[in-house]
Amino acid sequence: MSPFNTFCSDTLQGFKPSIGHYRGWALGALWVFPLAQAWATEPISIISPAVVTEPAKVALGKKLFFEPRLSQSGIISCNSCHNLATSGTDNLPTSIGHNWQKGPINSPTVFNASYNLAQFWDGRAKDLQAQAGGPIEADKEMASSHSVAVATLSSIPQYQQEFVAVYGKGAINMDKITDAIASFEQTLVTPNSPFDLWLQGDKSQLSAQQLKGYQTFKQVGCTACHNGPAVGANSYQKMGLVQPYQTENPSLGRYSVTGKEQDKHVFKVPTLRNIEHTAPYFHDGAVWDLSQAVEIMAQVQLGQTLTPEQTQDIVAFLHSLTGERPQIVLPALPPSPFDPLHVKR
Amino acid sequence: MSPFNTFCSDTLQGFKPSIGHYRGWALGALWVFPLAQAWATEPISIISPAVVTEPAKVALGKKLFFEPRLSQSGIISCNSCHNLATSGTDNLPTSIGHNWQKGPINSPTVFNASYNLAQFWDGRAKDLQAQAGGPIEADKEMASSHSVAVATLSSIPQYQQEFVAVYGKGAINMDKITDAIASFEQTLVTPNSPFDLWLQGDKSQLSAQQLKGYQTFKQVGCTACHNGPAVGANSYQKMGLVQPYQTENPSLGRYSVTGKEQDKHVFKVPTLRNIEHTAPYFHDGAVWDLSQAVEIMAQVQLGQTLTPEQTQDIVAFLHSLTGERPQIVLPALPPSPFDPLHVKR
Repeated sequence: MSPFNTFCSDTLQGFKPSIGHYRGWALGALWVFPLAQAWATEPISIISPAVVTEPAKVALGKKLFFEPRLSQSGIISCNSCHNLATSGTDNLPTSIGHNWQKGPINSPTVFNASYNLAQFWDGRAKDLQAQAGGPIEADKEMASSHSVAVATLSSIPQYQQEFVAVYGKGAINMDKITDAIASFEQTLVTPNSPFDLWLQGDKSQLSAQQLKGYQTFKQVGCTACHNGPAVGANSYQKMGLVQPYQTENPSLGRYSVTGKEQDKHVFKVPTLRNIEHTAPYFHDGAVWDLSQAVEIMAQVQLGQTLTPEQTQDIVAFLHSLTGERPQIVLPALPPSPFDPLHVKR
Repeated sequence: MSPFNTFCSDTLQGFKPSIGHYRGWALGALWVFPLAQAWATEPISIISPAVVTEPAKVALGKKLFFEPRLSQSGIISCNSCHNLATSGTDNLPTSIGHNWQKGPINSPTVFNASYNLAQFWDGRAKDLQAQAGGPIEADKEMASSHSVAVATLSSIPQYQQEFVAVYGKGAINMDKITDAIASFEQTLVTPNSPFDLWLQGDKSQLSAQQLKGYQTFKQVGCTACHNGPAVGANSYQKMGLVQPYQTENPSLGRYSVTGKEQDKHVFKVPTLRNIEHTAPYFHDGAVWDLSQAVEIMAQVQLGQTLTPEQTQDIVAFLHSLTGERPQIVLPALPPSPFDPLHVKR
């Protein structure tokens, strides 16, 4: 194991050194040591590009992610509320689902969701696979059922073949469906943001204002919750910790999972990665303006009133968290030999 | 002009001979002549790959095609009913639009729509550009208005820049929006189907049954309407020409455009390209099974009762019309600086 890996084993998973890389080691070692040490002292760490080890499973999962026949109506897919053409979300306060029903809570982005300590705002699903089955049978979302979803996919010959190719013989089931979707979602990471490149030593990536904003972000205490590779997503916190947060949204957060009084209005801290793209903000999707979101957070979570300059500096810093989106080639979904939704009627 | 072009000027638009092509002429001419002549005698001609001459305009049009902010709700885009992950349509009898309203007629595929003699089932839009503005302001579809669509896009800085880059200085307007969308749609062609390759001389592309099906297709008269590069889409015809077609769909077809009694229930003949992917069939989307669709067409349009063998042969032939879909890399839509739908509220 190289000294490089000693320092960066978590964030460089899947790092594949090229021949050129080894050639550069003699010189590279001179700057890698100080860099790795500096990096280790920052509360935010980089996101690494996805490493695909099972491309057939990921390809199947991508099809299922875009598969509207998983919904009762045949028009709603994972991509409806977690639109990969926008920001992995739908940019609505709350989503519009089956029969035009409004969802109860803001759709979080699927980009970098593999870094979440658990899924959904209240963390009721332990991982991406556990999450993927939820919307399929939620009345206000896809409004189908697991048995119908399995029957629908099983009625499509090409899916039959693809599931066998990926999972071996045996019937299609929800475990396989959600495993494939989760495998695809694990590839939806956005590395190489200006801030990541800055963390790795390219100091030209942040402007003076962004650097000042980052210092303010740390000094006022934002990093207490917004830290790690996802700049959040690794803890739960009460919304309105210091001052009450006013909202008409009835969600009770972790309380719905634990039943504990102290978990009322406790939500998973959202990622700040690509935050300029994921408006509107908060679990109620009430705020569109990023400056206003920063001011409110400082107020209700930290009891601090930011100056306009501090706010704008932090916003400038937050823009440096926009990473490279994975290139998504739209899958070609297989045809149905007959009405694929017949099993529901 | 080469003799090759003399025979194939329509279908080889944009054909760019390579150096290797010219090198091969001495030998190639030996078989090109008989091939081109044979081809010219077939009622169906090939579809050529799209030639993109204005990539920036096509890229902008692709964004707009996937742009849900063109709808009142912020969730419906061109791709909702003309889903490029399925078959350029939504595989529903009629589409589901704004406020979960059902559309009046089956959504036709956008693949190869540039070959249509006019757009919509009743041909009320003369071309793709004229079509593109329709759904944006249709109450049951995107339920926005042209002025709101223009204001929404104009509120997004990156769109402002991209429209200037493509169209020069000046405000965004509907002409530019629909021109860009149409430019993208012109790239949505599906060349190199087995039947196209067969037409070009590769006789191994069709099975004996498919070849028999094609002969039957011609002999019973299907090619009277289903001919040309799109295997249809180049004429209007009464639905139920010989025997009445029973439907609950109230659409009157060309009559809505011309007001002429003889145009009642006259519709644009749909393309048969990729037909195995575009169920359910007919303007009312009433039939899911391709065999049944073939039987009904022979009955009501030609007064012929096909044998089961004839039907299956024709269906086998129709499968040879599935071409190569263009590779669509999902665009990254630009963020809105504030609630992009505010102009509607």
